[in-house]
Amino acid sequence: MLDAKLTSKSHSHHQTIIKLTADITVGGEDLLIIGGPCAVESLEQMEAVASQLATAPIQALRGGVYKPRTSPYAFQGLGLAGLEILKAVRRRYGLPVVTEVMSIDQIEAIAESVDLLQVGSRNMQNFDLLKALGEVNKPVLLKRGLAATIEEFVCAAEYILSHGNSQVILCERGIRSFDPYTRNVLDLGAVVALKQITHLPVIVDPSHAAGKRELVPDLAKAAIACGADGLIIECHPEPEKSVSDARQALSLEEMVELVQSLRPIAAAVGRRVLNKSKVNASTLRQSFRALQAQRPVKSQKGKT
Amino acid sequence: MLDAKLTSKSHSHHQTIIKLTADITVGGEDLLIIGGPCAVESLEQMEAVASQLATAPIQALRGGVYKPRTSPYAFQGLGLAGLEILKAVRRRYGLPVVTEVMSIDQIEAIAESVDLLQVGSRNMQNFDLLKALGEVNKPVLLKRGLAATIEEFVCAAEYILSHGNSQVILCERGIRSFDPYTRNVLDLGAVVALKQITHLPVIVDPSHAAGKRELVPDLAKAAIACGADGLIIECHPEPEKSVSDARQALSLEEMVELVQSLRPIAAAVGRRVLNKSKVNASTLRQSFRALQAQRPVKSQKGKT
Amino acid sequence: MLDAKLTSKSHSHHQTIIKLTADITVGGEDLLIIGGPCAVESLEQMEAVASQLATAPIQALRGGVYKPRTSPYAFQGLGLAGLEILKAVRRRYGLPVVTEVMSIDQIEAIAESVDLLQVGSRNMQNFDLLKALGEVNKPVLLKRGLAATIEEFVCAAEYILSHGNSQVILCERGIRSFDPYTRNVLDLGAVVALKQITHLPVIVDPSHAAGKRELVPDLAKAAIACGADGLIIECHPEPEKSVSDARQALSLEEMVELVQSLRPIAAAVGRRVLNKSKVNASTLRQSFRALQAQRPVKSQKGKT
Amino acid sequence: MLDAKLTSKSHSHHQTIIKLTADITVGGEDLLIIGGPCAVESLEQMEAVASQLATAPIQALRGGVYKPRTSPYAFQGLGLAGLEILKAVRRRYGLPVVTEVMSIDQIEAIAESVDLLQVGSRNMQNFDLLKALGEVNKPVLLKRGLAATIEEFVCAAEYILSHGNSQVILCERGIRSFDPYTRNVLDLGAVVALKQITHLPVIVDPSHAAGKRELVPDLAKAAIACGADGLIIECHPEPEKSVSDARQALSLEEMVELVQSLRPIAAAVGRRVLNKSKVNASTLRQSFRALQAQRPVKSQKGKT
Repeated sequence: MLDAKLTSKSHSHHQTIIKLTADITVGGEDLLIIGGPCAVESLEQMEAVASQLATAPIQALRGGVYKPRTSPYAFQGLGLAGLEILKAVRRRYGLPVVTEVMSIDQIEAIAESVDLLQVGSRNMQNFDLLKALGEVNKPVLLKRGLAATIEEFVCAAEYILSHGNSQVILCERGIRSFDPYTRNVLDLGAVVALKQITHLPVIVDPSHAAGKRELVPDLAKAAIACGADGLIIECHPEPEKSVSDARQALSLEEMVELVQSLRPIAAAVGRRVLNKSKVNASTLRQSFRALQAQRPVKSQKGKT
Repeated sequence: MLDAKLTSKSHSHHQTIIKLTADITVGGEDLLIIGGPCAVESLEQMEAVASQLATAPIQALRGGVYKPRTSPYAFQGLGLAGLEILKAVRRRYGLPVVTEVMSIDQIEAIAESVDLLQVGSRNMQNFDLLKALGEVNKPVLLKRGLAATIEEFVCAAEYILSHGNSQVILCERGIRSFDPYTRNVLDLGAVVALKQITHLPVIVDPSHAAGKRELVPDLAKAAIACGADGLIIECHPEPEKSVSDARQALSLEEMVELVQSLRPIAAAVGRRVLNKSKVNASTLRQSFRALQAQRPVKSQKGKT
Repeated sequence: MLDAKLTSKSHSHHQTIIKLTADITVGGEDLLIIGGPCAVESLEQMEAVASQLATAPIQALRGGVYKPRTSPYAFQGLGLAGLEILKAVRRRYGLPVVTEVMSIDQIEAIAESVDLLQVGSRNMQNFDLLKALGEVNKPVLLKRGLAATIEEFVCAAEYILSHGNSQVILCERGIRSFDPYTRNVLDLGAVVALKQITHLPVIVDPSHAAGKRELVPDLAKAAIACGADGLIIECHPEPEKSVSDARQALSLEEMVELVQSLRPIAAAVGRRVLNKSKVNASTLRQSFRALQAQRPVKSQKGKT
Repeated sequence: MLDAKLTSKSHSHHQTIIKLTADITVGGEDLLIIGGPCAVESLEQMEAVASQLATAPIQALRGGVYKPRTSPYAFQGLGLAGLEILKAVRRRYGLPVVTEVMSIDQIEAIAESVDLLQVGSRNMQNFDLLKALGEVNKPVLLKRGLAATIEEFVCAAEYILSHGNSQVILCERGIRSFDPYTRNVLDLGAVVALKQITHLPVIVDPSHAAGKRELVPDLAKAAIACGADGLIIECHPEPEKSVSDARQALSLEEMVELVQSLRPIAAAVGRRVLNKSKVNASTLRQSFRALQAQRPVKSQKGKT
């Protein structure tokens, strides 16, 4: 049916498993849980997130440095300075990192710095960007457009695969609808369908879908129960102070609790949340305290 | 916020538990799983469903006798003859029965015959029907309108409660959206929200949401994982011969398998699928064979 | 294509013209412009509307006496007392009157009192109501459901026609969508399509579509330009004091101005706004003043 | 309200008028009617369109050379070869030309060749592209995203204005909805709103909105009646042979007829369709015949 032969199940009887690092994969038995703030705001912020979540454990860290914002006057991200923060945290905590790429000229710097390049919903059909990402040797996290059909979503992935890069992870993040109660409507029927018609890993972003933090944990459970290969969840050391999307970010404590609560659901559907991260928790806390001792804590929000 | 004081959480700190029979409840630890065909077609059909599913087990049987159909020329249901079939099966198998009521003048006959009166999506804001159901002493299953906001849905329930009947079960069944791949979009964010803002039981209809049987089981799991109190699922002895919605009905074997697969998910979120129905399985099979021996099997589809 | 043979163009090569009175028709060259408040609030209110608009001229008067409201605690309409007001105004001003019927048991009283029975959006698929209206010998104004497809809308009309009443006027009133700026999205593509695939008159309600009075006049012009047979527009002597939908009602002066502005558009597409009503304007003003002199002006809002 | 100070009405009390050429403007009394095929397929095709429509008259010619297509295997446009065709036709017929720019690296070549750079719906929130177009000294035609709110649309324009280019034309082209009968839903309420809250010209694309050619003329009339400053309409010498969107293209004869039918509507709302193009019709036909004599007519569809 779909004009997307490389992405279709018929192209590969095997479920595609994508490696972010030697130990962290997505698409197999292990779930990929990605956590972190909407935007990278400061090194302190990212250290706090990484040190507390590495032992949750989450398997990867998110944080935007180029931010697509509705208004040109809203915070647009720290840019290259933010990328340096991501690199520092990635090195120190051994956590793979994902960040959004908004244009072709950002690809090279981002591909050198992170483990997973995110294409945001607004760019799902930015075809020149997709073609360029088809020539990159790094996994791509492709978010569904906010009113994209399943067919359009699969065809967008096909743009990347047909240009040479088969490491694509699909991400359902809610579609636009009429009810103002939730920000978007999480479409888990699409997740089930995508698992049936493609061989690619499919993860879910319940944070953007719900838009309200109190809805996130139960939607995360639903996503795992219906077969999603992972989650990407917004969390922040001080959610109410987040520069963007404050209403939907979990606190770090809530994030830890959420990951724990997913274990029995995962087990019920034959999946697994990794038991512990490779990085030792007490080592992490020491390194964080050492870091705090060295430098005065200051907010860099929007100033770099 | 909501102009729905009786339905709101603030009105009752206790979760409402509704009894369908002495043993079958919804809203507590036990999940309510309702199965059966879209439309009652014949006694044989309903006997086949009840005898095979009573031990799945399901906790209640569905089957429409008054069918809201887009076209006036489509099968409109068996009417009172269908109601007699439901009564016979209910008596024989000890299973509570749910059927749809489309107008005020049907209420009396239906309320005398079944355990749970369903208001369909198209009638969610048929306010005179809601008011009349507020004066009935039977539980009501209120399905969300296909483009109803959460607020409108809660206010529709309030019409029933404010007229005296507090036994209302809410049912999310998918909302209308732009993607033709699925019939509707199952909105589990609404389920999580309804559990948070009301004290009423909330169940999920994954069959109408998905519109394709292969999507139903995984969506059913997701619904239970996010906190739904039950499910209503279409199944049919011969799905491809169903007079309506054939594409979304599970076979009875698939239905049994689905119920079994829900057990570990239910356990993971502190819920339970009843271990066995009160009716003994071998007794059921005997009574079904006896019944088949007595009467020639014939289709009554659309002929009564 | 459609399972709606009586409603389809193929059933009748002639455009159906429906008579509201001996002089007022819809579906032919003359446009049908219906004006009036969302709800009938008092005799004074309706007298003010009728006396000022009869010479606009509008061709019919609207005013709800049974109001479908999201909340059970909102004003539900004056009921039979409201119907008496409509009858009085209709007699005095010789204007045909339209009001909404919400349930079967209201049909008889309403059909005796008014010229056109409205089925509201929430009841477009209240099939038992449609069937009952199929047996009435009065024209029916069928509003499109807020998320009804064109096919479902046409099939809803077919329910009425197939039960014997072929006097059905279709009304596009906006469909539900994602943008909070407008209340609904006016779907003029549906109007053009309905004129092509059915032989029924099609009118447009820009008030409910827009939800903001400043958008109404330009949308009214668009509706006439694309071929609509008429308009139904909310207006009120004191819009800001309207008991419901205050934000979308025009003042009576704005309504008069709107009707005048439609004349050149109507002419441009070969249609006509009647030049003057049958009732003499100065007579109307006299009768209104006489009425005011007789009785003290008092608000009956919600008190009858 | 909007975080879009430069685009807001409050920034400029004057309606912005944008010049495409010395004689062709948009935003003032004269309507801008743009016609042409979805994709540039060959010089012959574009010559046929320009020669027949210059005297319709249309005021500008459209034709895509970089085509955003759902599937990577669909025709992606003639690229630079197509741009040469546009330049040749523009020179010969004196008609301003509009074509879509999909990525930053295409801007320079396109800006040198055409009069108006189109940003397609899928790129409405490709913010890096918008910023780059803010630095170009050519008018930009910004199409509304298929599920963009009015606020998001206005803010997308603000990206261009705030980066230095105030020559932005907004284009409503239908939003995605649930009804398969039309491809999209033309949202004229948005057109009325945009005219009220911004000072920019607003045009309408009824072709993509309707998706069916028989709906286009009446929607075009509606657009002009509600205050749109112009139209962009797909037409093709042989619609059924169009490489893309064949179902929605008018024939050239239908396009000529449509432009004529708009005159009385335009007059009714105080607007004007230019009486004749600057290019003399008989000259045009001669030059076209000369061109046909020189070169064999051949299809270059998808082969360049």
